Amino acid sequence: MADKRSDEIKLGVFYWPGGHHVAGWRHPDGETDSAFNYQRCVELAKTAQRGKFDLFFLADLVGIRPENLDAQAGAARAVYFEPLTLLAALAAVTDRIGLVATATTTYNEPYHLARKFASLDLISGGRVGWNLVTSHNQAEAANFSANPHMAHADRYVRATEFAEVVKGLWDSWEDDAIEANKETGRYFDPAKMHFLNHNGPLFSVKGPLNVPRSPQGQPVIVQAGSSGPGRDLAAQTAEVIFTAAESLAEGQAFYADAKGRLAAHGRSPDDLVIMPGIFPVIGRTEAEAKEKYEYLQSLVQPSVGMFLLQHLLGRDLSAYPLDEPLPDLADHDGAKGRTEVILRMARKDNLTLRQLYLNVAVARGHNVVIGSPGQVADVMEAWFDGRAADGFNVLPPVFPTGLNEFVDLVVPELQRRGRFRTEYSGATLREHLGLRKPAFKAPDAR
Amino acid sequence: MADKRSDEIKLGVFYWPGGHHVAGWRHPDGETDSAFNYQRCVELAKTAQRGKFDLFFLADLVGIRPENLDAQAGAARAVYFEPLTLLAALAAVTDRIGLVATATTTYNEPYHLARKFASLDLISGGRVGWNLVTSHNQAEAANFSANPHMAHADRYVRATEFAEVVKGLWDSWEDDAIEANKETGRYFDPAKMHFLNHNGPLFSVKGPLNVPRSPQGQPVIVQAGSSGPGRDLAAQTAEVIFTAAESLAEGQAFYADAKGRLAAHGRSPDDLVIMPGIFPVIGRTEAEAKEKYEYLQSLVQPSVGMFLLQHLLGRDLSAYPLDEPLPDLADHDGAKGRTEVILRMARKDNLTLRQLYLNVAVARGHNVVIGSPGQVADVMEAWFDGRAADGFNVLPPVFPTGLNEFVDLVVPELQRRGRFRTEYSGATLREHLGLRKPAFKAPDAR
Repeated sequence: MADKRSDEIKLGVFYWPGGHHVAGWRHPDGETDSAFNYQRCVELAKTAQRGKFDLFFLADLVGIRPENLDAQAGAARAVYFEPLTLLAALAAVTDRIGLVATATTTYNEPYHLARKFASLDLISGGRVGWNLVTSHNQAEAANFSANPHMAHADRYVRATEFAEVVKGLWDSWEDDAIEANKETGRYFDPAKMHFLNHNGPLFSVKGPLNVPRSPQGQPVIVQAGSSGPGRDLAAQTAEVIFTAAESLAEGQAFYADAKGRLAAHGRSPDDLVIMPGIFPVIGRTEAEAKEKYEYLQSLVQPSVGMFLLQHLLGRDLSAYPLDEPLPDLADHDGAKGRTEVILRMARKDNLTLRQLYLNVAVARGHNVVIGSPGQVADVMEAWFDGRAADGFNVLPPVFPTGLNEFVDLVVPELQRRGRFRTEYSGATLREHLGLRKPAFKAPDAR
Repeated sequence: MADKRSDEIKLGVFYWPGGHHVAGWRHPDGETDSAFNYQRCVELAKTAQRGKFDLFFLADLVGIRPENLDAQAGAARAVYFEPLTLLAALAAVTDRIGLVATATTTYNEPYHLARKFASLDLISGGRVGWNLVTSHNQAEAANFSANPHMAHADRYVRATEFAEVVKGLWDSWEDDAIEANKETGRYFDPAKMHFLNHNGPLFSVKGPLNVPRSPQGQPVIVQAGSSGPGRDLAAQTAEVIFTAAESLAEGQAFYADAKGRLAAHGRSPDDLVIMPGIFPVIGRTEAEAKEKYEYLQSLVQPSVGMFLLQHLLGRDLSAYPLDEPLPDLADHDGAKGRTEVILRMARKDNLTLRQLYLNVAVARGHNVVIGSPGQVADVMEAWFDGRAADGFNVLPPVFPTGLNEFVDLVVPELQRRGRFRTEYSGATLREHLGLRKPAFKAPDAR
């Protein structure tokens, strides 16, 4: 596979209230106010920027599940800022780090999303990415007059057309369409403004977008889906894939598959950056790291762990005993890719439900690395060099300390090894990630 | 009418690329880059905050009309930042001024809007308002797979239910629902989280919103509609009305009507702040102001003026001669309230089309005041004391200078007269405007 891959690892930080360990907020160091205290989020984004991270990543769900409220009340995950709103506010107080927000194609309109991301890309000076997802739970459907929610396949059909419309709208204006010539009285050149005139099975969108073309040409498209249809969509449109892989071999298989699908769409391996999640528990020594991990595990409430597991698997498991091996679970219509990773994990080690929820509570199927800064860097290098990753989305177990430790201990180690930037060399997220700026393409040339 | 109205005038500034005069961007002082240069918007918001304004106001349209592109190219109004995105970024760099963004109920989902405004209200520390509008042009419909667009009456039916859902969602969480108790392991109290379970003719929204209750209780609801159904909706839900009135008498009639409608909904006159637009052309002397005005008028291109007039009246006028009186125009389905104001203006003075577009190009039916700072203050006092206004939304003809002049010349004059604050006394937009914080009301008590 001939590509121009550099030796430098790409790094994102995945923000999540309290931290990625489900009991992170209960840790004495864990923050408990980032869901409503904006300054806390600013502090996290600035720390990530101090660490020269490529991007700050925001997940999203547009609802709260109605069941097991007592269990949900034990986690800090019910409330948080709407990601695009938070991102715009963070864009104003950062100047280099990339900013990626999740937004669903299932319950949005492409014109609204295209417009918000284009505006954000202008406001941030070209630092924005869109994590394109589909919505897979009934709680979200119930907030959008949609009952029952869309089937898995239909969601991807919609997502594919949605992405096509958004990308088309982002090319409504040529880069030099705005003249702002006071003498001639011409503010823009009408020949350089383009109607999309999209008439598809699901969307009719005339355009043009009422926002000029953004500094990156188009915001970066990120995807996380790892199911079959998710992989097809990613091969067509994703420029970054954020995925979950528990082992190097699993990561390598996913990496080869995802990069291998690009050629069919006329794309090269350099057009896609693959960033699996990594959940690092960092100590000055391995022993200290293990102690930290055990302490966090001791804070997990069984009701919370079981709720999280049921949520990820999309099914009720309350009938099964906690301390016996996981029963056989047939296929269903939830988030397929992640479910398979979790079930594979369970079967491999013959885990009980309790063991599985403790695993899942920790990292939801992501790669857990417990060790010294050197050990964490070793794993990252091995995955990068073994072509399981072009970079990582870092899931600190506890905010803010887990991020501080990564920035203060692991980043310098990676820099010493020549595997991570010591200063930003570019201005835009595309430049950080080594992705090229897409040339303007008029609608009739698409 | 017994109320607790203070002697202080409320002030908003209405941001619009280049300024409110359609040729403002062509003036040597006019900015031409605020549609894509975020720092320009920051500068304007900070100037308004330096002037102790109550609020910074953003209009919106979700589309560009497809006709007369050469005429549209002569104005700086085709492109601008999406208002909620811009507002979030401005919230991060201001600390006192209120921030109001327009968002349509016609092509949005209430859950998305409720969530974005609640997030914004938290991020800004309680400084946010929502200008609730309906969409009335075909160019917007064509961007949302909706063809033909909704009839006027249907838009208000939708807007009314939409507002009900949004206000319900804003009370998903009681003010003290978040416990974040590390010892008990309870992050929130499930008894203080409420499902909305709205099942109306147009929307089914279960809730709860996944954003806590905001510092103001609920963001302030602003409305601009002055048609019959618009006035009914405002009487039910608006806390601020931004309206257009050309004369004191017209303003007084509107004011009395709007305040008079409140009692039927169990509301008092203090629950509504009426802010007509004012378009001030300020000189150190009246002569200087008139000279400024004439110079601006000389920059108006006929094609641009006619386009703007046709847009506001919602009809093609190209068949009519420019220099003869306005023909009789039957009722139609555009933005009714504003249309009536403009037609009344034309008939009163027997204006030609050219004279009318020059008037409309200036202020779109708003109150034009050309004079010294003292003269502008005189008009504002007369409207305030004559109960045509509780305050004003200021439409500077040219940005940034028109705003600078207002802040540096008119604000000190109002302060000397004891008619405007010299320092912010409150923290939230509600406190600035003298509106009370709504108490939490559970869905089943609504």
